[in-house]
Amino acid sequence: MDVKKEIGVSKIMGSKTDTYRNFPMVPRVVFGQGSFNQLGEILLPKRKHSEAPFIFLVDDVFEGTKLIERIPLIFNDQIIFVSAEEEPKTSQVDALVQKIRNGYEELPSGIVGIGGGTLLDLAKAVAIMLTNKGSSAAYQGWDLVQKPSIYHVGIPTISGTGAEVSRTTVLLGPEKKLGINSDYTTFDQVVLDPDLIQGVSKEQWFYTGMDCFIHCIESLNGTYLNAFSQSYGEKALELCKEVYLGELSPEDSRDKLMMASWHGGMSIAYSQVGVAHAMSYGLGYLLGVKHGIGNCLVFQYLEEFYPEGVKLFNEMREKQGIVLPIGICKNLSDQEFDTMIEVAMGMEPLWENALGKDWRKTITPEKLRSIYEKI
Amino acid sequence: MDVKKEIGVSKIMGSKTDTYRNFPMVPRVVFGQGSFNQLGEILLPKRKHSEAPFIFLVDDVFEGTKLIERIPLIFNDQIIFVSAEEEPKTSQVDALVQKIRNGYEELPSGIVGIGGGTLLDLAKAVAIMLTNKGSSAAYQGWDLVQKPSIYHVGIPTISGTGAEVSRTTVLLGPEKKLGINSDYTTFDQVVLDPDLIQGVSKEQWFYTGMDCFIHCIESLNGTYLNAFSQSYGEKALELCKEVYLGELSPEDSRDKLMMASWHGGMSIAYSQVGVAHAMSYGLGYLLGVKHGIGNCLVFQYLEEFYPEGVKLFNEMREKQGIVLPIGICKNLSDQEFDTMIEVAMGMEPLWENALGKDWRKTITPEKLRSIYEKI
Repeated sequence: MDVKKEIGVSKIMGSKTDTYRNFPMVPRVVFGQGSFNQLGEILLPKRKHSEAPFIFLVDDVFEGTKLIERIPLIFNDQIIFVSAEEEPKTSQVDALVQKIRNGYEELPSGIVGIGGGTLLDLAKAVAIMLTNKGSSAAYQGWDLVQKPSIYHVGIPTISGTGAEVSRTTVLLGPEKKLGINSDYTTFDQVVLDPDLIQGVSKEQWFYTGMDCFIHCIESLNGTYLNAFSQSYGEKALELCKEVYLGELSPEDSRDKLMMASWHGGMSIAYSQVGVAHAMSYGLGYLLGVKHGIGNCLVFQYLEEFYPEGVKLFNEMREKQGIVLPIGICKNLSDQEFDTMIEVAMGMEPLWENALGKDWRKTITPEKLRSIYEKI
Repeated sequence: MDVKKEIGVSKIMGSKTDTYRNFPMVPRVVFGQGSFNQLGEILLPKRKHSEAPFIFLVDDVFEGTKLIERIPLIFNDQIIFVSAEEEPKTSQVDALVQKIRNGYEELPSGIVGIGGGTLLDLAKAVAIMLTNKGSSAAYQGWDLVQKPSIYHVGIPTISGTGAEVSRTTVLLGPEKKLGINSDYTTFDQVVLDPDLIQGVSKEQWFYTGMDCFIHCIESLNGTYLNAFSQSYGEKALELCKEVYLGELSPEDSRDKLMMASWHGGMSIAYSQVGVAHAMSYGLGYLLGVKHGIGNCLVFQYLEEFYPEGVKLFNEMREKQGIVLPIGICKNLSDQEFDTMIEVAMGMEPLWENALGKDWRKTITPEKLRSIYEKI
């Protein structure tokens, strides 16, 4: 099976003899309530000429809302609404690229992604594929992208994935779910407007925020960490606690969740995820369970590996009145369990990060099955 | 008098009706013990051709040390040793630029600054002035730089100023001490190698770290803050406490101080300093007291404004066995006191950040004199 880890860290960082990743940061960021209003001004100097449009990829939940009226369309700019119901796919990226190529004689001035992790990942991938040949599936992996992407902007409307700041775009391809990890993937500009995350449902708000929280727990308890990623991860974790366990005003809560996601994404630079992500991959691969909720479903049963983290998670879930679905794995066949287990156990770097080189002494198919059966 | 505030925030950020700064981040960073060894590899793709050198501006305390042998010189690259005994000056920048222009027919491929805040600020300013006409003094202010700077790299060997990540370079000009605040000021690449801060004296290590600590106390207690800067400032503060009050290994301590400086510098994006910086300016202007120690000399007497911060500061100072000089202002004339007070009271945004719009009700010349007299 060719399913691989999703997070963009390809080797162990942090020991003296290693080469450290020269990490690309988002070179330009604006933060503030209402900062979305500055988008027109931000894009203007990036417009190549009137025939080279900006293409806005927007989560279709915003269709017909006031946000759409605020998008600064001029010339032949175009809004393309995209559903985020399913995880982003290489075929979807290829179709979007084809649509844009067919619609215009010129390359666009840029791509603007407006939405959650799915839309942000699609925007990154489309920006890359407009200048690189073939199918996006050919670029899933590490540093396979040859040519710089076109200018691309990320505007999160859900916070927690860290997609706004990471150097990967995770895509489901014909053969594998894997990120296009490259220095060209990172956004050229991010607009962090906490007002934009107001409309999200409580469940989505919780699951996506927990993506950040669980990532932090996994990376801070991992063996791959260094001080750079630790400091970002600790801050992201602290902000998650404030948001989900504190008594913040709605405004402060949005501000802080947006920053939690930002710092959580930065912490990926020199760290790796762990048990929850590995097992969640099995769920996603077999059952199509989405990333955020998949992590939650697994994580609740990982007290053996992350006792403090699971305790905190349960406190947050209870305080926020979130009821996780049950019986997801109830009617699975032995063969289906085996598939999930095989996918999960294939995530070697995640297990090694979580448990060290001897992880196979702890992690057996029986062990994983016993956890999956609870879900 | 034309002395102005030094930190690169020119207007109030953080209220809904404002325009927020579209903040430039360092687009590329590598962190890790020994990462200095990657410098050659990092610079290679940035070399325009064999006649366009890299110029390394290096603190002259490193002359004759092993660090110099590790600088990846090829072709006609040049190392220029610079003293950091005094604060960086516009005349010094202009002389360096002239020297480089006279020495080569081509523009350099880039400038690499290796040292503390002084060297980093000089490197930023030289990179700007190689493509912009006239004297660097003409660019002191906000967004006066017209043309992009040449590629420039910052490699800190002392941590605390945040110069490695900020969009300003503070220079003493013929008429004013003020930063060149521009989007072109920010480094294109930073190398964070905690091993490099090993050689610094205990006093310098303390004073420079306290630059970060005091900045955090001032900005976190200020009125200009937003959630972006708050999250970075809080993390920087926490790391300072670990470094100066905790029981860390020397290695962890260096790692964490380097990250404290980094986050502290990032927190400048949407925040402002306060009372200590304003008053320290008076000391610097009149007596040439350097930035780090000047802040400490003032801050110790600011319990009225920052009770918690001053308490922590004194704990750190005692734990580290640092004895601050006394009697600095003992023999000053009335006129000299008045000069310092005038300079300090000219820093309006700093006072407004610290105490709100009505700051003049609290801050009088008599009040400031009583504090200066203690120093």
